[in-house]
Amino acid sequence: MRFPVRTAFYISDGTGITAEVFGHALLSLFPAEFDHITIPFVETEEIALQVKQRINDRYKTTGVRPLVFQTFVDDKLRLIINSSEGSCYDFLNAFVEPMQKELGLSAMPKTHRTHSIHEKTYDFRIDAVNFALANDDGSNLKDYAKADIILVGVSRSGKTPTSLYLALQYGIKAANYPFVPEDLDHLKLPAELRQHKNKLFGLTITPERLSQIREQRRPGSKYASLRQCKLELDEVEALYQRERMAYLNSTHLSIEEISAKIMAQTGLKRQKY
Amino acid sequence: MRFPVRTAFYISDGTGITAEVFGHALLSLFPAEFDHITIPFVETEEIALQVKQRINDRYKTTGVRPLVFQTFVDDKLRLIINSSEGSCYDFLNAFVEPMQKELGLSAMPKTHRTHSIHEKTYDFRIDAVNFALANDDGSNLKDYAKADIILVGVSRSGKTPTSLYLALQYGIKAANYPFVPEDLDHLKLPAELRQHKNKLFGLTITPERLSQIREQRRPGSKYASLRQCKLELDEVEALYQRERMAYLNSTHLSIEEISAKIMAQTGLKRQKY
Repeated sequence: MRFPVRTAFYISDGTGITAEVFGHALLSLFPAEFDHITIPFVETEEIALQVKQRINDRYKTTGVRPLVFQTFVDDKLRLIINSSEGSCYDFLNAFVEPMQKELGLSAMPKTHRTHSIHEKTYDFRIDAVNFALANDDGSNLKDYAKADIILVGVSRSGKTPTSLYLALQYGIKAANYPFVPEDLDHLKLPAELRQHKNKLFGLTITPERLSQIREQRRPGSKYASLRQCKLELDEVEALYQRERMAYLNSTHLSIEEISAKIMAQTGLKRQKY
Repeated sequence: MRFPVRTAFYISDGTGITAEVFGHALLSLFPAEFDHITIPFVETEEIALQVKQRINDRYKTTGVRPLVFQTFVDDKLRLIINSSEGSCYDFLNAFVEPMQKELGLSAMPKTHRTHSIHEKTYDFRIDAVNFALANDDGSNLKDYAKADIILVGVSRSGKTPTSLYLALQYGIKAANYPFVPEDLDHLKLPAELRQHKNKLFGLTITPERLSQIREQRRPGSKYASLRQCKLELDEVEALYQRERMAYLNSTHLSIEEISAKIMAQTGLKRQKY
């Protein structure tokens, strides 16, 4: 017997990002595979009715009831989707009532749009992205005074993606500085870094994983060899400890986890909440 | 009478990102200001008890009950937090039961960790970030064959932050190509772009907003003048229409909205769900 894959719909009048996060968090609890379909910007009853039809059709063709994660605030649209034959999870609605009671306030649906533009935080984030790009890979030492944080580490230890994520997610201005092999004999902190020592945050990684990553970039090179990776990492970790710098090992962490740990460890104030 | 600001706690044994998204979506419905505190990586009972104390202390010092958004799966930790004096919103728990019934499966809490590492999707995203950086600002025309999408537009119309967000959020490889003023007399598609015409996606923006953004970068310059902005935008919009290219106006959109609209309009298959 064929075991049909269940479809998960993420539906919203906005980007659908909240519906996705909400649905993923729930689905990740279950040991099963799902087909995923996001339908963002469902802003009219006409489109909502088409989406309802699409859910019902999917039920018919697959023989299993689709799961529907939705984050509408508009009652008419919400109810159209909930009247589909899907199994609907309507989390905003489930919590609005108790929260209204707790706050002694009425919800004002019009202000919904979690991921829409907020002039102030928008500029912070674009500025932070531009800062990260201008200060990537040690390219611009003189801007360090403006940095919220300076990530340091050897090549391919995760500095660049982390600095971009910190910018986009939190509006944090992160510079990054690579320790290159020439620096690595009896590694000392360069003067440009030393004067901003309170902003430094070190990344490290296991030699095995680093070698694997570098191997993809320059196969068979000295740069990618386990020996070279080990040598570089031994030096930077000794430096982190000698200088009592905050650092973390990124080997088993996602970009989100590295960033959240950095935020928690440093107590950095994010520009976006 | 002083009106005390309510505190919102986001608490998790992981990054706290899901708790934040969930809490923000709810709070954005209410016309009020909140203090925000994220406490990620609460992984032991000892830490959970400290966090509970912190919630209770906050209640005492502010005089208003804190709101607590939590996404624990571990029952012991979840119950410690829920036994605090905060007003607790425990959304995973609220939906796990009906979803278990619908799926005919038991939830397996150990697989929780929405934002933790998944070897495959991780590599996709790092690759995609590296691709976006290597192909930023028309710097590398020969990689366009490998691009999932090529964003085009005038300088400062949102190409770079969007390409990075597409990489980090969806694992999409986005190149971007700027139309510079020299190209703009009787603008034609450069040959490098024409051969990948099915991948092109245009961004545009109002002249007023573009001028405002450029003004921050080069105050008083011809580059930032409303006249120059209007001239460039007229040309690219005429091109988009003449070539029947997909495009959108980013003026009132957040990076998330631009990205979600691009994903929806192009039907691009994301690497991460």
